[in-house]
Amino acid sequence: MKYYAGVDIGGTNTKIGILDNHFNILAEQSIPTLSQQGARSTFSRIWQTILDLLAQNELSEAQLAGIGLGIPGPVVDQAIVKIAANFSWGNDFNAKQLMEEISHKNVVVENDVRAITLGEHLFGAGQGVANLIVVPIGTGIASGILLNGKVLSGSGGCAGEFGHIMVNEQGMKCGCGLTGCLETYTSAPGLVREAKKLLSAPETDKQKCGEFFQRFSTDLDSLQAHHIFEYAKKGDHLALQVVDSFAKYLAYGLGVLINIFNPELIVLAGGVAKSADFIIEKVQKFLPHYALGVSLQNLQIKPSQLLDSAGVKGAAALVIK
Amino acid sequence: MKYYAGVDIGGTNTKIGILDNHFNILAEQSIPTLSQQGARSTFSRIWQTILDLLAQNELSEAQLAGIGLGIPGPVVDQAIVKIAANFSWGNDFNAKQLMEEISHKNVVVENDVRAITLGEHLFGAGQGVANLIVVPIGTGIASGILLNGKVLSGSGGCAGEFGHIMVNEQGMKCGCGLTGCLETYTSAPGLVREAKKLLSAPETDKQKCGEFFQRFSTDLDSLQAHHIFEYAKKGDHLALQVVDSFAKYLAYGLGVLINIFNPELIVLAGGVAKSADFIIEKVQKFLPHYALGVSLQNLQIKPSQLLDSAGVKGAAALVIK
Repeated sequence: MKYYAGVDIGGTNTKIGILDNHFNILAEQSIPTLSQQGARSTFSRIWQTILDLLAQNELSEAQLAGIGLGIPGPVVDQAIVKIAANFSWGNDFNAKQLMEEISHKNVVVENDVRAITLGEHLFGAGQGVANLIVVPIGTGIASGILLNGKVLSGSGGCAGEFGHIMVNEQGMKCGCGLTGCLETYTSAPGLVREAKKLLSAPETDKQKCGEFFQRFSTDLDSLQAHHIFEYAKKGDHLALQVVDSFAKYLAYGLGVLINIFNPELIVLAGGVAKSADFIIEKVQKFLPHYALGVSLQNLQIKPSQLLDSAGVKGAAALVIK
Repeated sequence: MKYYAGVDIGGTNTKIGILDNHFNILAEQSIPTLSQQGARSTFSRIWQTILDLLAQNELSEAQLAGIGLGIPGPVVDQAIVKIAANFSWGNDFNAKQLMEEISHKNVVVENDVRAITLGEHLFGAGQGVANLIVVPIGTGIASGILLNGKVLSGSGGCAGEFGHIMVNEQGMKCGCGLTGCLETYTSAPGLVREAKKLLSAPETDKQKCGEFFQRFSTDLDSLQAHHIFEYAKKGDHLALQVVDSFAKYLAYGLGVLINIFNPELIVLAGGVAKSADFIIEKVQKFLPHYALGVSLQNLQIKPSQLLDSAGVKGAAALVIK
């Protein structure tokens, strides 16, 4: 039996898993990324963690057949991070070369969203579907586009960035430099911001407000995205208003993807995927305003199956398949 | 030497060309489509025209190696028109089978925009570029998306329909059934409609208006899209206003495609491609508001090279390549 490491490098933490070639996760650990200490330091600690996990499972270094790395940013040639958007590791950072130098193993690098997409295709909600789109929603929103079994990269590794479609010309500045991007509404921070606006707006009719308002209007700082979904599911009027607005923007964005790709399946992933069934129900209500009827006919929208392990399994998929 | 027929079936007229395998058009003829007489009638007249053109060029029927058909609508398996959107030939209309039955030749069928895209890739502005998007603008707007040398079809043959992205929730009803589609602004009819609005608006300052206003304000019916570009190029204030608004919407739509595909090249085709250089200059001004800087860096936007022969050459490309 051969074994593989799947590594999901995030802004704050990096998740590392050891998998067998049936994609069972044998061991998993999260370490702080500490990217400011430099790429070599982060990659060395990742390798050390892989070695520790192997030892804990009584596996030898020789039994490790390869390492898959999922990393945010524009990745080209399954090796190079073109632009230092997320870490200060420089432009044209050859992540594959560095990790191979440290580990002496075969390493495949891919953008994190594209790794997750491959994971859902091979082992998750998209099994057996050759044309699908995976949409992770968390601190941002993006899309992994699988066409005929291959994930779309774009000429500079930047494909899939539908979160930066402008949806409000008078909207807020986005982290990307553009204004009024879809992502400023259809992300966890966007949800929380819009909820806080409503909770503290003078025109909010306090008389009519329920539990959600009672709990958070005087404690805005503790509000997180999952609270909004919890209260909305219970029928809270104010929380529902926030989710409806979120779902409308999301339907707009998905409508664009549907008109352009005419996909068989869309998979909602990321942090909010835990409320995906609820979100999908809301989104379906708005979709007919934004997507061609003919392309909605045979479309399915499903929640992620891999959930929290999507990153690690997706990264491992890069080397196992 | 082998010869091929390229057929571009349009709503009103059908263009038929005979090409050699170097893609030289030896003969070309346009016949009325008359789709209401039924598919068999139209296809039989197409075949008769092919035979006539062969005879006129002293070529035998045996020298014809195949027929490529470009047709509007969602085409799947390079054979079947899924939905009778443009002609009343029924859903799941097997255009390949019918044409092969009539001609006893090898027939390949493709959506007209995708045929043009293949044509521009093989013989036009997109030669040597494996990842490009061709955007024909005429009575509507659509996109042909070429990825790794293959044209994207979508699961139901409907890929590329970015003309039906909603850009104005309070906009006019589009032919597709949705409201405020991009196409209602970025098409020849959209241009003409917006120009007529300005020409007849009471708030238009007649004192300041130039030649364009003088010529068309009392003769709205004779206004065509090419007039607007002609006068705008001469610096006419009112015509420029119309073109600027058109270019802004077009930049929005192209921005969406750029964010999603990160392509190397976009080719503007269709009726308005004759003014493409002028349009591209205007579009470039607005693009940085709608597309990620990183995806604009290495992007080229060019006019079609095949122009009027794009349809016939594109269709022929289906069988020649």
